Amino acid sequence: MTDKQFVNNLFDVKGKVALLTGATGALGKAVATGYGLAGMKVFVTGRSEDKCKALCDELSAQGIECGYSTGDPAVEADVIKIVNDAVDKFGEINVLLTAAGYNNPQPIVEQDLTEWKKIMDSDVQGTWLFCKYAGEQMIKQGKGGKVIIVSSARSKMGMAGYTGYCTAKAGIDLMAQSLACEWTAKYKINVNTINPTVFRSDLTEWMFDPESAVYKNFLRRLPVGRLGEPEDFVGPCIFLASSASDFMTGANVAVDGGYWAN
Amino acid sequence: MTDKQFVNNLFDVKGKVALLTGATGALGKAVATGYGLAGMKVFVTGRSEDKCKALCDELSAQGIECGYSTGDPAVEADVIKIVNDAVDKFGEINVLLTAAGYNNPQPIVEQDLTEWKKIMDSDVQGTWLFCKYAGEQMIKQGKGGKVIIVSSARSKMGMAGYTGYCTAKAGIDLMAQSLACEWTAKYKINVNTINPTVFRSDLTEWMFDPESAVYKNFLRRLPVGRLGEPEDFVGPCIFLASSASDFMTGANVAVDGGYWAN
Amino acid sequence: MTDKQFVNNLFDVKGKVALLTGATGALGKAVATGYGLAGMKVFVTGRSEDKCKALCDELSAQGIECGYSTGDPAVEADVIKIVNDAVDKFGEINVLLTAAGYNNPQPIVEQDLTEWKKIMDSDVQGTWLFCKYAGEQMIKQGKGGKVIIVSSARSKMGMAGYTGYCTAKAGIDLMAQSLACEWTAKYKINVNTINPTVFRSDLTEWMFDPESAVYKNFLRRLPVGRLGEPEDFVGPCIFLASSASDFMTGANVAVDGGYWAN
Amino acid sequence: MTDKQFVNNLFDVKGKVALLTGATGALGKAVATGYGLAGMKVFVTGRSEDKCKALCDELSAQGIECGYSTGDPAVEADVIKIVNDAVDKFGEINVLLTAAGYNNPQPIVEQDLTEWKKIMDSDVQGTWLFCKYAGEQMIKQGKGGKVIIVSSARSKMGMAGYTGYCTAKAGIDLMAQSLACEWTAKYKINVNTINPTVFRSDLTEWMFDPESAVYKNFLRRLPVGRLGEPEDFVGPCIFLASSASDFMTGANVAVDGGYWAN
Repeated sequence: MTDKQFVNNLFDVKGKVALLTGATGALGKAVATGYGLAGMKVFVTGRSEDKCKALCDELSAQGIECGYSTGDPAVEADVIKIVNDAVDKFGEINVLLTAAGYNNPQPIVEQDLTEWKKIMDSDVQGTWLFCKYAGEQMIKQGKGGKVIIVSSARSKMGMAGYTGYCTAKAGIDLMAQSLACEWTAKYKINVNTINPTVFRSDLTEWMFDPESAVYKNFLRRLPVGRLGEPEDFVGPCIFLASSASDFMTGANVAVDGGYWAN
Repeated sequence: MTDKQFVNNLFDVKGKVALLTGATGALGKAVATGYGLAGMKVFVTGRSEDKCKALCDELSAQGIECGYSTGDPAVEADVIKIVNDAVDKFGEINVLLTAAGYNNPQPIVEQDLTEWKKIMDSDVQGTWLFCKYAGEQMIKQGKGGKVIIVSSARSKMGMAGYTGYCTAKAGIDLMAQSLACEWTAKYKINVNTINPTVFRSDLTEWMFDPESAVYKNFLRRLPVGRLGEPEDFVGPCIFLASSASDFMTGANVAVDGGYWAN
Repeated sequence: MTDKQFVNNLFDVKGKVALLTGATGALGKAVATGYGLAGMKVFVTGRSEDKCKALCDELSAQGIECGYSTGDPAVEADVIKIVNDAVDKFGEINVLLTAAGYNNPQPIVEQDLTEWKKIMDSDVQGTWLFCKYAGEQMIKQGKGGKVIIVSSARSKMGMAGYTGYCTAKAGIDLMAQSLACEWTAKYKINVNTINPTVFRSDLTEWMFDPESAVYKNFLRRLPVGRLGEPEDFVGPCIFLASSASDFMTGANVAVDGGYWAN
Repeated sequence: MTDKQFVNNLFDVKGKVALLTGATGALGKAVATGYGLAGMKVFVTGRSEDKCKALCDELSAQGIECGYSTGDPAVEADVIKIVNDAVDKFGEINVLLTAAGYNNPQPIVEQDLTEWKKIMDSDVQGTWLFCKYAGEQMIKQGKGGKVIIVSSARSKMGMAGYTGYCTAKAGIDLMAQSLACEWTAKYKINVNTINPTVFRSDLTEWMFDPESAVYKNFLRRLPVGRLGEPEDFVGPCIFLASSASDFMTGANVAVDGGYWAN
């Protein structure tokens, strides 16, 4: 029934435990903060002990319940350890959000297999491993869950130099769709992707110069009229973690300023 | 900045004025109620005076500020009148949600042009007219706005007998994408579609019999494991009306239980 | 069996009767010529008696069996007459290719309903009517057939000023998909779309100036590195009319220089 | 100019050299035969010396110029050797068609990382390596070329148990799109995918039993009304290898009986 209480609770995620990968990046940090301020318990992970600790300290200073564990998302033993650490810390995992990723654009004839594999391992294998082990945990818990895979608008738009990145991101879109088929009816675990365009970060800061050709060309294709700010990412991530999106699964949600629209 | 106040306000739509078409149908009614209980002022419209009045009475009884006006969404003069009535009642329009629609599945060789046009007029022309006139009003107001077009999962999946309905729904997906290009950067009006699969209503009740072949075949393709309930629709509609989705425009948001995913 | 004769006949369309709409445009003319030179009997149609006659004379001069009839594709009586004329002339219709279309880009708030309807009627209703009546004829013949709907790359990419054109083209993509569901298994009639980007014509000639900003911006998104020439269109149209594509139906075939790819 | 000679040559692939991977499978064999009978020189490759030799003998018996070399498409050294062997045999490579692939459907929680990697390596890394080294050769030749990647209708449709296969096939669709951006304008190398649904082979023969539930369910979603036969694949593969498709690049061509259409 659509009554007052139902509406009030739609976006309420208080008390849920989220495991976030790639949490020390600009998007990951914004989501970790947003989730925490919305009342979630946040378990962050990344490769760097220093960065993870600093993020966790920052979150704790805002009154957020937080934990962390470090490792390489592409290494199975690391993923198992991280998932276990999260469960040790908070007792369960209700939301998995994978934001870890890597890119190194190069023409295929110049790119070494090793370098291409590094992209694929970070972006695809890392996502697969976290889905496998955090998913296994959610299934064991028997209470459903939400998986949010951060893909990219590039998952459906090719680009010169991107035989790694576009391939990887397209792959995880379909991984989400397949997991939706595998899990949602059976275990009440919803699996969706968010597909962002360029958001501001240390790595992309240079693209935000309004005088640059890159910026101008980008804007030509961005109906929203600006590039993304980390804050733009928070709302959709809370939405997909909340009961408001219970009927959505296997969806590729464009948080892209309209990049796919034109 | 992602601070406490930012997070608290993400889904806050209190005080916004929404104009809803097709409001007396099952989905429209759920959204009208949800919007109202979330604190929005709701202006509903449909063809039947009786149904509009009954809905408005029901909403008012729950303490929702409500108004209505009747007319045919495919008739230009009616649309102009309805938009004016909404502005007269509430002073402005911040959100337009178009849920009016019609279908009559028939093989093309058996379907009269008149009948096909009726589908196209209700589903495409009606949507175009409301976008045109409510959009004009939003532009005049200069405060931005949100347009949510209720399309269908059928907008990307053909079906025998559906040369009207699928054609129409595919059309309005692209209408939304074009309006995003036209309006978002310039006027801060975001335009997105929601693409639902079958939801429970008087018209679809027969599909919900778990013993029927229709139901079983449908379920085979619905990763979420059940058909939609009107309540499932409310969260996504509030999300797209709120600032949480400010970076989304021109998107086709699948609220389809995973129908597009497999 | 994949034997010599099978391979030799794959693209053989000799003797087939094709009905072409929009035949006096640049694309239509190229296809009419290509079909004719490949041995098909070509029945062309357009609004202008003079242009149809001139085209037919030109085709006949190349030894092509040709006929024509004029009319407005959006007017039911005209379509019925044209289909009948084609059958009177050649005894049957084996291939329908609809290339008629119209556009007039305008912001929605500036576009009159009448003007918008003109786009929709030309591009959607005209296509629907030809499918209905030529399809009926093919069904009656009982020998299967091929329907090729010329849509546009714009059918999946919105654009400011295009709430008519993009809407219409998206619509006919789904019309094709629905007709595939309705007809292919039952009547062996395959229905596919071709989705071109900008091709050279009298109307688009101005876009081909390599010094212009329009051209340069376009090229940035065209992986093939050039705009389309009418000849580029002929091969795909013969392919979709031939037995080589017998397993393809309901497909949107991008003949777009890679416009959709990035 | 669309003249007689132009039309006659559209699908003429005589004398072109094709390198085919996965050539000993049902689809690969049909294409090898079709290409050969259309006058191409065919260089086939697979893992099994016996099967490659048998295929080559069979092709030669039909008067086809043929060569072969064996190896694992996921192993870089093998791919380099195969590409070199093809060039040694025929002097150049004009067409690359990758049909090698592997699947082993399993729920993610039951699938070992090793097994998942095997799918990804065969289907993605193998394709990437052949594109890299055969592409390098085509670039060196300076005469353009055609790359046809055999993907799958599953590249856009998730499925339980398919976090390997769907992920891989989605990935190679975008690999093709990215390579189109990278190569077509610069080197006149077109890169497209073909996306088949189930075709008859030793592995899929069991699905063709018209009494089985699998078959019946499949047919419900196949507008063409039957599953694919290897012969259905030949025409599209010749089309994409010929000049008739010169304006197509980065396209995902559905040879799927309409599976994507509904």
